[in-house]
Amino acid sequence: MALLRHDPIGRASRNDPQPFHLDADAAKNTFFGGLAASGWHTATITMRLLVTSGPNIAGGLIGAGGELAWPTPTRPGDRLHLRVTVESVRASRSDPSRGSATLKVETLTHEEDLRQLFTVRTLLFARPQSA
Amino acid sequence: MALLRHDPIGRASRNDPQPFHLDADAAKNTFFGGLAASGWHTATITMRLLVTSGPNIAGGLIGAGGELAWPTPTRPGDRLHLRVTVESVRASRSDPSRGSATLKVETLTHEEDLRQLFTVRTLLFARPQSA
Repeated sequence: MALLRHDPIGRASRNDPQPFHLDADAAKNTFFGGLAASGWHTATITMRLLVTSGPNIAGGLIGAGGELAWPTPTRPGDRLHLRVTVESVRASRSDPSRGSATLKVETLTHEEDLRQLFTVRTLLFARPQSA
Repeated sequence: MALLRHDPIGRASRNDPQPFHLDADAAKNTFFGGLAASGWHTATITMRLLVTSGPNIAGGLIGAGGELAWPTPTRPGDRLHLRVTVESVRASRSDPSRGSATLKVETLTHEEDLRQLFTVRTLLFARPQSA
């Protein structure tokens, strides 16, 4: 679980300085009708949760890219957690020490509202073969 | 253009605390062979460039999601700029005040190496019709 902390307004002012991320009053008259986190803020919280609370993957968690969706914005007071589904794992044909996995990473609130869906292709590194 | 500044190591330690983003010595023996920025770091720099140097879009720049790829990682010393292509624009069928645009956002170095490709669907808001 991660709260929206670490100065979200300060973070938005650096990364995505738009009124609906920065100012509760100004946000009222926007599409969101109130303060909403930047999708990138949700994405970086998701990455932090993956790296700090997921399994310790040899070689690290390295994403090549994927499909990203923000069906609803993260709001003040949301407590976020992840549901990660391994959709596929395959070995590289050209390099037996490499492979890739496709992960479906759902970022959900405490009420199970979906804030972000990221289907990402990650690199995998095989264990060295013993002689 | 944006330099990799604003304490990239500090940023990585909050968002994506993996050795290849944090420690030049530790990074040498990883997949990247040296310090590499997190893809999310590249993504947030891209968003900042879009918001602070792009056209001022009525209602703000609001992305619903899209396809994200990191063909190569951003490296220390990179100077990043964007090339944005409007791929399509269409009006909403159900709500004439709304529409969407698909943008192809390329994040490039000073040597035109592609660090990130984001094909994103953004919301558009029509000008109010005069009576």
